[in-house]
Amino acid sequence: MRYELYYWPGIQGRGEFVRLALEEAGADYVDVARLPANRGGGVPALMRFMDDAKATHPPFAPPFLKAGKLVVAQTANILQFLGPRLDLVARAESERLWAHQLQLTVTDFVAEIHDTHHPIAGSLYYEDQRREAKRRADDFLRNRLPKFLGYFERVLGANPKRGGYMIGGKLGYIDLSMFQVVSGLRYAFPKAMARAERKASGLVALHDRVAARPRIAEYLASPRRLPFNQWGIFRHYPELDGK
Amino acid sequence: MRYELYYWPGIQGRGEFVRLALEEAGADYVDVARLPANRGGGVPALMRFMDDAKATHPPFAPPFLKAGKLVVAQTANILQFLGPRLDLVARAESERLWAHQLQLTVTDFVAEIHDTHHPIAGSLYYEDQRREAKRRADDFLRNRLPKFLGYFERVLGANPKRGGYMIGGKLGYIDLSMFQVVSGLRYAFPKAMARAERKASGLVALHDRVAARPRIAEYLASPRRLPFNQWGIFRHYPELDGK
Repeated sequence: MRYELYYWPGIQGRGEFVRLALEEAGADYVDVARLPANRGGGVPALMRFMDDAKATHPPFAPPFLKAGKLVVAQTANILQFLGPRLDLVARAESERLWAHQLQLTVTDFVAEIHDTHHPIAGSLYYEDQRREAKRRADDFLRNRLPKFLGYFERVLGANPKRGGYMIGGKLGYIDLSMFQVVSGLRYAFPKAMARAERKASGLVALHDRVAARPRIAEYLASPRRLPFNQWGIFRHYPELDGK
Repeated sequence: MRYELYYWPGIQGRGEFVRLALEEAGADYVDVARLPANRGGGVPALMRFMDDAKATHPPFAPPFLKAGKLVVAQTANILQFLGPRLDLVARAESERLWAHQLQLTVTDFVAEIHDTHHPIAGSLYYEDQRREAKRRADDFLRNRLPKFLGYFERVLGANPKRGGYMIGGKLGYIDLSMFQVVSGLRYAFPKAMARAERKASGLVALHDRVAARPRIAEYLASPRRLPFNQWGIFRHYPELDGK
């Protein structure tokens, strides 16, 4: 099965959570919008899909994944779909619901991270909402960052299998997502994150364990991994990084 | 199977999407935090669960549902779990993924609706973020409300079964959620919503169809249905309702 991933070409964004799963599994996939337009790629390929008036299951927004005739959208839903196919989640329903529950909590966290630099509107530039961004980021660093990291650290610590993974004794898609969140927060808020990591040693160890997986290490060093930049979810504005 | 729903007792909030599914199905359930404390209810019962240091699958936030030994959190995940058990979603994986994808888009919509009155921080009062709320609500009404409603209207129109439901030829949990969204938006933004509904006749008809279901009509007239109020997701501040 060759998977087709559709996501904005210039950023890691929400698509990156899906890429990490595909890369770790060594799956056969095409990152469609990053292909040149003359090979059927680019943003036009993505927009054709979004705007297809005949589609009965249109996605609201990227990322979406094409798997044969099936089109699946919403990051956490894509991961839930891929999980058993890529051996990145256990088979039991209770474990799959738990993995998805954690992934949806990552979704909430990511939305709040995004809104630190865009608290008013995605349609406006950061520069047009700087003052509000400062207020929101201050609250985020004081209240929300420790709450989310503390929760995930607690989940790690409560896993009865003591292998350092979020669920059970082996790596799953949720671990890959935790890696991405820690990486992104380090890029966006280096000072605040350095402080927050003192209380999140399990997550830091998990981040390093994921980064050292052979396929992930190869991916991170490849041109397929886009660098963090100022157009994605995780953006570095020094004035938002606390004191 | 008696389900136990845990959610903040004073508001409809995210718990309402789960209540509507349980009510439509005539399921046996207890709304635990709305029971008196001397019958094991109230907020203490909810907090005991959240703070249980021995829990291996702790929820990040309400709502969560206890079904036998299983505890499931995240609204859309709960609905995905209940869907087949309450006959509110089709059995085929492709249909279940599609229903869940739409429900996750409702989740995104609901988060944006909430943030119109709390763009800076959930920990602050509305009065402490009024100016920012006005800016965010203006953008929401101009750009986001029409985009989300237009999307759901498109999905309704693209359903090859022409029964007026979101998916296939019979009512599912996503239809109940659409009812709740339309109801809540009418409460929060009566003027803006009256305008927006002119382009969403399918959703208005769906709202009315759901409201007329015997069990839903009985529920809405009962004391189990809390009224909308100024502590929930959908709040009415006239100054945010546009011109």
